[in-house]
Amino acid sequence: MIVPPPADGAPIVGVIGGGQLARMLAAPACALGIGLRVLARAADDPAAQVVADTRVGDWRDAATVADFTRGCTVLTVEHEGSTRSDAATCPVHPSPQALRCAQDKVHMRRTLTEFGYPCPRWAHATDVAEVLAFAGRSGWPLILKTPTGGYDGRGVWRVADEGAAERTLADPDLARLLTATGGGLLVEECVAFERELAAAVARSPSGQAVAYPVVATTQTDGICTEVVAPAPRLSDDRALAASHLALSIARDLAVTGMLTVELFDTGTDLLINELAMRPHNCGHWSIEGAVTSQFENHLRAVLDFPLGDPRLRAPCAVMVNVLGGTATGLTGAYRHVLARDPQLKVHLYGKAVRPGRKLGHVTLLGERPEPLLVRARHAADYLSGRISQ
Amino acid sequence: MIVPPPADGAPIVGVIGGGQLARMLAAPACALGIGLRVLARAADDPAAQVVADTRVGDWRDAATVADFTRGCTVLTVEHEGSTRSDAATCPVHPSPQALRCAQDKVHMRRTLTEFGYPCPRWAHATDVAEVLAFAGRSGWPLILKTPTGGYDGRGVWRVADEGAAERTLADPDLARLLTATGGGLLVEECVAFERELAAAVARSPSGQAVAYPVVATTQTDGICTEVVAPAPRLSDDRALAASHLALSIARDLAVTGMLTVELFDTGTDLLINELAMRPHNCGHWSIEGAVTSQFENHLRAVLDFPLGDPRLRAPCAVMVNVLGGTATGLTGAYRHVLARDPQLKVHLYGKAVRPGRKLGHVTLLGERPEPLLVRARHAADYLSGRISQ
Repeated sequence: MIVPPPADGAPIVGVIGGGQLARMLAAPACALGIGLRVLARAADDPAAQVVADTRVGDWRDAATVADFTRGCTVLTVEHEGSTRSDAATCPVHPSPQALRCAQDKVHMRRTLTEFGYPCPRWAHATDVAEVLAFAGRSGWPLILKTPTGGYDGRGVWRVADEGAAERTLADPDLARLLTATGGGLLVEECVAFERELAAAVARSPSGQAVAYPVVATTQTDGICTEVVAPAPRLSDDRALAASHLALSIARDLAVTGMLTVELFDTGTDLLINELAMRPHNCGHWSIEGAVTSQFENHLRAVLDFPLGDPRLRAPCAVMVNVLGGTATGLTGAYRHVLARDPQLKVHLYGKAVRPGRKLGHVTLLGERPEPLLVRARHAADYLSGRISQ
Repeated sequence: MIVPPPADGAPIVGVIGGGQLARMLAAPACALGIGLRVLARAADDPAAQVVADTRVGDWRDAATVADFTRGCTVLTVEHEGSTRSDAATCPVHPSPQALRCAQDKVHMRRTLTEFGYPCPRWAHATDVAEVLAFAGRSGWPLILKTPTGGYDGRGVWRVADEGAAERTLADPDLARLLTATGGGLLVEECVAFERELAAAVARSPSGQAVAYPVVATTQTDGICTEVVAPAPRLSDDRALAASHLALSIARDLAVTGMLTVELFDTGTDLLINELAMRPHNCGHWSIEGAVTSQFENHLRAVLDFPLGDPRLRAPCAVMVNVLGGTATGLTGAYRHVLARDPQLKVHLYGKAVRPGRKLGHVTLLGERPEPLLVRARHAADYLSGRISQ
């Protein structure tokens, strides 16, 4: 079916990518009465299943992107993969220049360091000797990262010592990447952090910005699995420092849309781990938990509409991811999880089950994180099939 | 584009009707990871603009409905118009038998009266003499209603005296309807009410039911324009009585899905005005204001999934409708209304502007209704063009 343009001259936001982040843009686009057009890889992508104006095509092809953006008011992206967004016939937010800091981790470290932002010690290594030289300065263990293409723990290796580094780098693909022209790896000290935090902000082209409450995140095997908003036991001063950091980075890098800054909290310092310029797993709690969700504020920001209030609607919100396990037919578990917890908010992304794959998340709002986490973990584990009662 | 069935055996809810009520089912269907299929009248209907699996066709045609429901888990409706839902190849909720009480006001009055529920005095009149005889018993003014097809004040006449009744009934269409075989009009006393309330419940096929907070509603020219949840200055006893009334009616009429009972509050009595068996304008506040919105609970109810918590997330929620006025291009007003009130939640339905037409609504949550209403009315008036500053 051909989708007619939205009524009454409403703007159209084009999104490159059809994953769950594009899918979760659908609800606020619908509420605001603006058009949402998705460029998906396949007709059964999470967003393609629900967004009426979905096109299937290759976003690495300039003609496809140019055609896709005809009639769009603005183009945005839901992932950091390589695209031909430069071929868009409309403005692109975030700009390719800003986005490069979220796509290329060496570029990100170089830029943040130039601006004086606090990062782990790092180096750009293009041969094994440079990796070992970095270890000589910073010690073991260390972290190796592919500059581009990594996510959810992929493209990241923790190496304990020289032998482990040599074994890891003996992998033919990695060895090729390390020494290729324009290649290399990012080498970072392994930060002894107490916990991980995330500071998310939305920023519009005209420079308006809002900061979400700083959250505590838990990663399991490199995948964000739990988020608590606001981060427990974080002093007002340190929360303000984290928000200020994210707002400053958004300004200095001219980010438009959502920016999430993942942080290592060492107990005394806040060091920048990663940047994401799109809605982020760390902000899913905001759908029910904030006055304005990260998805709505991403749309408002890229359209240069005034931003919405990012504050919590309750003293506390928790989010737990549903990862693929043994269960198939996840909605079959609704009879249990919805009956057990009538306050549970479930989000399933319409993805086929694969072990460890992010299939959805659950959110609960309340007074204190601990009891909410117990309930949310139970629901997530039951949905994934890890427990059956 | 052909929409593939939802991943992993998730159920599909078919909806007859493509208006804003179907449109607002899209967000919770997406979150729950269930399929939503809409039978719309036109490709630019409010729901057709956003729901990927939209079919355009005539729901009064049995073959169209049968074809539409192939593959659906359950069929529901978003309006009380005449449909061939009896041709569905899947279960239908609410059942055609239950739905008849929301479609035919004479049948509704007869059924409620048989069960002993409190109604205004009423009669089924099939000629002018019967209307005048009713007035002789109940006095003037009185209310004339077409049994079917009325909504938003259409099909309702308030007549002050015998002369007015004769003039109204002299309208050829109405005269024909009054005396047609199987026709007639509903005649009701004009209730001297202090205010209008609404009690909404969700009920599932297996008999689980939840009651939303009782709300106060304001109608302007027969159109619901404002809702305050919970209804101010309503004693716990009377709120409980209203909820009990709605729960009992849902049980006695075997309603499945949402049921909204519109009530006249005379100060001492609660009299039933109308029934609606679908999400209702009176419950739009629940999208942000309740733990589980009426749209999510309608889907959960018709699928016989456990129902969600209907309670308020804040002490108070207000909803004001955006009616068509002089303004076109409503999203152009976002620069003003969103900047002025960062907590405002706007819902636009993607409809072309016509004077008096429901184009959207705004919702605010907070502590007390009065200041929220001032802010919400300002936003609605600015969006519609009634005010420009």
